[in-house]
Amino acid sequence: MSLATLDTSQHPNLPTASATLFQAKATKKLSFEQIAQHIGRNEVATAAIFYGQAKGSPEDIASLASLLEIPQPILEEQLDGFPDRGKSVEMPPKEPLIYRLYEIVQNYGYAYKAVLNEKFGDGIMSAISFSTKVEKETDADGNNWAVITLRGKWLPFSRF
Amino acid sequence: MSLATLDTSQHPNLPTASATLFQAKATKKLSFEQIAQHIGRNEVATAAIFYGQAKGSPEDIASLASLLEIPQPILEEQLDGFPDRGKSVEMPPKEPLIYRLYEIVQNYGYAYKAVLNEKFGDGIMSAISFSTKVEKETDADGNNWAVITLRGKWLPFSRF
Amino acid sequence: MSLATLDTSQHPNLPTASATLFQAKATKKLSFEQIAQHIGRNEVATAAIFYGQAKGSPEDIASLASLLEIPQPILEEQLDGFPDRGKSVEMPPKEPLIYRLYEIVQNYGYAYKAVLNEKFGDGIMSAISFSTKVEKETDADGNNWAVITLRGKWLPFSRF
Amino acid sequence: MSLATLDTSQHPNLPTASATLFQAKATKKLSFEQIAQHIGRNEVATAAIFYGQAKGSPEDIASLASLLEIPQPILEEQLDGFPDRGKSVEMPPKEPLIYRLYEIVQNYGYAYKAVLNEKFGDGIMSAISFSTKVEKETDADGNNWAVITLRGKWLPFSRF
Amino acid sequence: MSLATLDTSQHPNLPTASATLFQAKATKKLSFEQIAQHIGRNEVATAAIFYGQAKGSPEDIASLASLLEIPQPILEEQLDGFPDRGKSVEMPPKEPLIYRLYEIVQNYGYAYKAVLNEKFGDGIMSAISFSTKVEKETDADGNNWAVITLRGKWLPFSRF
Amino acid sequence: MSLATLDTSQHPNLPTASATLFQAKATKKLSFEQIAQHIGRNEVATAAIFYGQAKGSPEDIASLASLLEIPQPILEEQLDGFPDRGKSVEMPPKEPLIYRLYEIVQNYGYAYKAVLNEKFGDGIMSAISFSTKVEKETDADGNNWAVITLRGKWLPFSRF
Amino acid sequence: MSLATLDTSQHPNLPTASATLFQAKATKKLSFEQIAQHIGRNEVATAAIFYGQAKGSPEDIASLASLLEIPQPILEEQLDGFPDRGKSVEMPPKEPLIYRLYEIVQNYGYAYKAVLNEKFGDGIMSAISFSTKVEKETDADGNNWAVITLRGKWLPFSRF
Amino acid sequence: MSLATLDTSQHPNLPTASATLFQAKATKKLSFEQIAQHIGRNEVATAAIFYGQAKGSPEDIASLASLLEIPQPILEEQLDGFPDRGKSVEMPPKEPLIYRLYEIVQNYGYAYKAVLNEKFGDGIMSAISFSTKVEKETDADGNNWAVITLRGKWLPFSRF
Amino acid sequence: MSLATLDTSQHPNLPTASATLFQAKATKKLSFEQIAQHIGRNEVATAAIFYGQAKGSPEDIASLASLLEIPQPILEEQLDGFPDRGKSVEMPPKEPLIYRLYEIVQNYGYAYKAVLNEKFGDGIMSAISFSTKVEKETDADGNNWAVITLRGKWLPFSRF
Amino acid sequence: MSLATLDTSQHPNLPTASATLFQAKATKKLSFEQIAQHIGRNEVATAAIFYGQAKGSPEDIASLASLLEIPQPILEEQLDGFPDRGKSVEMPPKEPLIYRLYEIVQNYGYAYKAVLNEKFGDGIMSAISFSTKVEKETDADGNNWAVITLRGKWLPFSRF
Repeated sequence: MSLATLDTSQHPNLPTASATLFQAKATKKLSFEQIAQHIGRNEVATAAIFYGQAKGSPEDIASLASLLEIPQPILEEQLDGFPDRGKSVEMPPKEPLIYRLYEIVQNYGYAYKAVLNEKFGDGIMSAISFSTKVEKETDADGNNWAVITLRGKWLPFSRF
Repeated sequence: MSLATLDTSQHPNLPTASATLFQAKATKKLSFEQIAQHIGRNEVATAAIFYGQAKGSPEDIASLASLLEIPQPILEEQLDGFPDRGKSVEMPPKEPLIYRLYEIVQNYGYAYKAVLNEKFGDGIMSAISFSTKVEKETDADGNNWAVITLRGKWLPFSRF
Repeated sequence: MSLATLDTSQHPNLPTASATLFQAKATKKLSFEQIAQHIGRNEVATAAIFYGQAKGSPEDIASLASLLEIPQPILEEQLDGFPDRGKSVEMPPKEPLIYRLYEIVQNYGYAYKAVLNEKFGDGIMSAISFSTKVEKETDADGNNWAVITLRGKWLPFSRF
Repeated sequence: MSLATLDTSQHPNLPTASATLFQAKATKKLSFEQIAQHIGRNEVATAAIFYGQAKGSPEDIASLASLLEIPQPILEEQLDGFPDRGKSVEMPPKEPLIYRLYEIVQNYGYAYKAVLNEKFGDGIMSAISFSTKVEKETDADGNNWAVITLRGKWLPFSRF
Repeated sequence: MSLATLDTSQHPNLPTASATLFQAKATKKLSFEQIAQHIGRNEVATAAIFYGQAKGSPEDIASLASLLEIPQPILEEQLDGFPDRGKSVEMPPKEPLIYRLYEIVQNYGYAYKAVLNEKFGDGIMSAISFSTKVEKETDADGNNWAVITLRGKWLPFSRF
Repeated sequence: MSLATLDTSQHPNLPTASATLFQAKATKKLSFEQIAQHIGRNEVATAAIFYGQAKGSPEDIASLASLLEIPQPILEEQLDGFPDRGKSVEMPPKEPLIYRLYEIVQNYGYAYKAVLNEKFGDGIMSAISFSTKVEKETDADGNNWAVITLRGKWLPFSRF
Repeated sequence: MSLATLDTSQHPNLPTASATLFQAKATKKLSFEQIAQHIGRNEVATAAIFYGQAKGSPEDIASLASLLEIPQPILEEQLDGFPDRGKSVEMPPKEPLIYRLYEIVQNYGYAYKAVLNEKFGDGIMSAISFSTKVEKETDADGNNWAVITLRGKWLPFSRF
Repeated sequence: MSLATLDTSQHPNLPTASATLFQAKATKKLSFEQIAQHIGRNEVATAAIFYGQAKGSPEDIASLASLLEIPQPILEEQLDGFPDRGKSVEMPPKEPLIYRLYEIVQNYGYAYKAVLNEKFGDGIMSAISFSTKVEKETDADGNNWAVITLRGKWLPFSRF
Repeated sequence: MSLATLDTSQHPNLPTASATLFQAKATKKLSFEQIAQHIGRNEVATAAIFYGQAKGSPEDIASLASLLEIPQPILEEQLDGFPDRGKSVEMPPKEPLIYRLYEIVQNYGYAYKAVLNEKFGDGIMSAISFSTKVEKETDADGNNWAVITLRGKWLPFSRF
Repeated sequence: MSLATLDTSQHPNLPTASATLFQAKATKKLSFEQIAQHIGRNEVATAAIFYGQAKGSPEDIASLASLLEIPQPILEEQLDGFPDRGKSVEMPPKEPLIYRLYEIVQNYGYAYKAVLNEKFGDGIMSAISFSTKVEKETDADGNNWAVITLRGKWLPFSRF
């Protein structure tokens, strides 16, 4: 089985930590599932730390440093600040897998809005008070299905 | 409770059927939940038909015409063709609720890709052999949470 | 003193209610300050209702209908749904007054982020659990100063 | 508590001074609040100097050099010119925190304009004769609120 | 079986002939396959005439007028000029089916170029001295496959 | 005859493997036809591997390493991950050969959609369960014609 | 001599007053020079009122109504609000005359900035506390030269 | 007083000569006014040479080399070709000072066109047979005003 | 032979005169060659008048009115002002014929610049003091060739 | 007289050969006219080879290597592949000289199309089976005129 890797020449704007983490992951031949289990976080959140899209706690950093055999002070320094999110995917996404997710928003965006507004009132589903997960299902015919769950707090617009 | 409506001056590129359907929905004061139940489809799919983003079967059309008291031949004519999808949301979305979904793709896009690739191999989650649903959860503190599930068939890239 | 008006040929994508409300406002020669006082909301929120960017409660609608002498059922019908926000300002804004606000975000965006992150941790200031107001100050030299206050709930990124 | 840092691979177009200042800030483990207090300026203005978006006076530079233990001639040379503003945030912003500010302009832009025009007449709020500040409030329920104040001189359009 | 139709509110920039032709096609309940057979042209070329992307000869026009029961002088007048091609698809295409074709160009563009250059030398495959067709195949498992063939004259770059 | 080469200064975002592969190809003076034959894949797929747009199996990598005399561990490391597709062609394409393909989508997109929908129903031709090939024909007058075949599985939209 | 006119089909987003004013101007066969003289304002400011880019005072409106024989209440109603500036020129400008002005900014922008900063310090030339005029010069060889003068108040960036 | 400097990390696309010239200017602590006086050209033109937007004559180059103590052959080589104009300002400009100039074009573009057309006929003001200057005025209240003059030859459209 | 026509639904931003002229041209069944001969101007210039891209003199207008049997006062009114050029082609052009011209600029732009600079010095070829023509050649093999000539006055950059 | 040179920091995406060729041209002080004469090709084509927009034959390469004293194997290696055209001019062009050509297409595009269609029928002028040249004319008043000729094969759209 192949593992996700990072070719920095394709991602010049990711943080320095991304190169450090992905290189160690490749050397240790670990999957995100294994790393996530080790640090006690969800796989998607773990991968998001690798892409500079989520913040690791001090414990996460210590745990990653130990698992990936990266000198802890180096990882701490590289992960110490606050993620500068949004620099990994160029929109509209050209990557086919990511485009499909974008297309779902493009096609069903107003349908989601209509249904959510009728269920919850005027507001939004938070993308910050938010978690997500990926699951794999196999049906009776042996076909695989990917299931992505998005769970966000409902925030009503304030009245002022 | 308010219901989702359509102001055609804000959506000049939606199909004629959208105006017909939304106007009847407003007159009948029906929610998408009620309409979906009546035609036996998911709420999001039902709303997607209203926005011209999903195709109704002949039975769906008959059922909608009856529930919404729209002359069936008119609805048939307006819904007869194939949806010309993608004309409802202007990207990047300016609507705050839809933007949050877009932002999830922007921020977590590569994390999803990495996790999906490691779980399934080289391929994509289909947005066509695909279904989605919206659920409402209320936690112990009385906070509401929106849960959106995306379920798509895994398509491996063909070897050729 | 002049009052803010709406020329619909310059704003073809605003909701029907915008034309109704602005026309009545012009006829009644009322300022947003006067209207806001009448319905018990902030001026900016009141103007946002006029531009289709905020939702009026049933009481707001009744109150507006009465003040502006618009038949209440008409206003209810036009304001019944959920605002389809984001269709008033074309970005980047070409209007000089609005551009100055955009420029503040462009120039000070990362400075705000750095200061907010250090004060609150990893998260965002909500634009939904949010209120804003505009005030006028006159200094000793007789110069006028506009003061805009933005107040949003701090949302920390969820750990998952 | 974490401090704001700068990963230059994510900001290739910031001035050389940004790297110098942020690196020293990280080494000295100082917050913008502490630095601002030391040089007698507002936190946001201080961070703006770090991002190349505001000019430091000769006294500011001397004070920063001393606090951050940067050789003064080096800092003087790097900060001597006039800021080339606007190169830090790519618009529309992809960073979630900065996007929320952008969204406020997008959604409330015309409401601000209408209210300001009615209060002040035909003109703009200056973004140059301008100051801003960030404050933290905690409400009775323990929720934190960020308060951003924008204060700009009102400039009426000249009659000519 | 459903037939392709045209909702002009979704395609405001198509020529007048498009509305005329599609409306008649809907009334006569004819597929492009049937129309193409009648006028002796390929299905894709026939549909391209309907979308204003290909020119009909005088014989094609006479034949279409007769089959679709459109007064011939009207159709002649509407189809007399030269197609103003390129106004049907907005790029990048938002329609999922058309996007897949666009994605093929995006992903395989340089691979096609490399292979074509090695086979033919320095030049291009003409999109003008060009024909295309669509075929349907069904494999042993009952899956349907769409086969699109593009055939264009090879044009070497002139030496000058 | 000239061979396709890669000038990395023109393609800064291709993966490291692209430089490795193209350099070896140039040294060995091999065409994609020859390489494809050796590894038992189609020419276009082979070139797509070189451009980082398709994944090579472990056997492909071993075979390429041997043919091109690249140390196998190096090639394995560079090709181990999952292709980050979509980074080779900037859209709209400026390269004349690739633009012609783009133009075909732009001009015939809706014609293809109409014909495919009538032949197959509501759905798309997959670009993932997909293969393509390039052929050369020479007509009686000695003119060369390029024939590109696109073959994709038909995916009907799921009903939900 | 020809006079400047307005073809509203080319300027769908100008305010209603633009059509009213330009139509009356054409009927009365008046140049902007004549109109400007009548209302006591600069020609460019006068034309800017016609294009909805500047505000007329109550006296200007009365004077325009009288000169152009437009019923004063109609003109007052159409010009009563605050200009929604920025909707006349689409940027980058396609009109050759306007493009030349844009090109001057594009080519000399940083040269202006450098010279202005050295002369005035850190700040901007206001485009609000601003006036402009157009003059015609004829040199000894009979060549005509256009001279445009821009005069704006210098605003230093506030220290905060 | 501060002098204009160049931080090449903020201007990666300027010619090599820009770095050479600005570095020498910083070392010699010379203003554009002083340099312009020395070479006998206008300040704006002088700054434009530094930004690669204007061509220096052989005499200008010799004079600059001497004043700035740059080896003449180096400066000759770097300035020998023809300026590749337009690479300094990214449009729309994000720099506040340059944006104000852009905004003047955006807001007054059609007013300038109307007035110029009425004064000169159908044509344009040349940006090539063109000169410009910057002046400083101080009014009775001690306020500074920047005056920019644009002077271009009038070119009538040829009749053909 | 077919004649060029105008479908205004495809060109909503052309001036009113375009519809008037093209409709009369269609009725009179005249080619641009015939019309150009009648008014004594070049074919391209004549077509440019029809598309609102060139100005007709009073004599041209009278001559066109007479030839096309359009009431002269109507044509005078519609053609009286100054062309608002640049509104016919949307860039990048989607029309294949026009795209080819655009591609020539894209591919040979710098080559033209280099050759022109070496032949004429630092300057530009005017597009205003400019004429153009189209010719048809047929070679020995019966192939047709289009020859477009562009002739513009050379304008050297002013020294200032 | 100055010669055209290349500053690679302004053209980071040109092929390696461009730097090699332009540097040798500068050293040898040769104009494109001289080089073109030597290799027996047109000046524009010669410059296009330098910018990576045209392919040199093996004889051209040998001849260039000899004239410019570049080791032939190096030049062969750098020019061996197929040009990756379209990477020199960023569209819309910011360079004033190239913009004028772009503007000609923008303004006269539909006029060319109308005239060409009427002269040749439905088709395009090829930009591949194409040659171009630049000439200098001096009129009786001593004014210089640039004449650019575009000559392309007429390709009628295939009937299929």
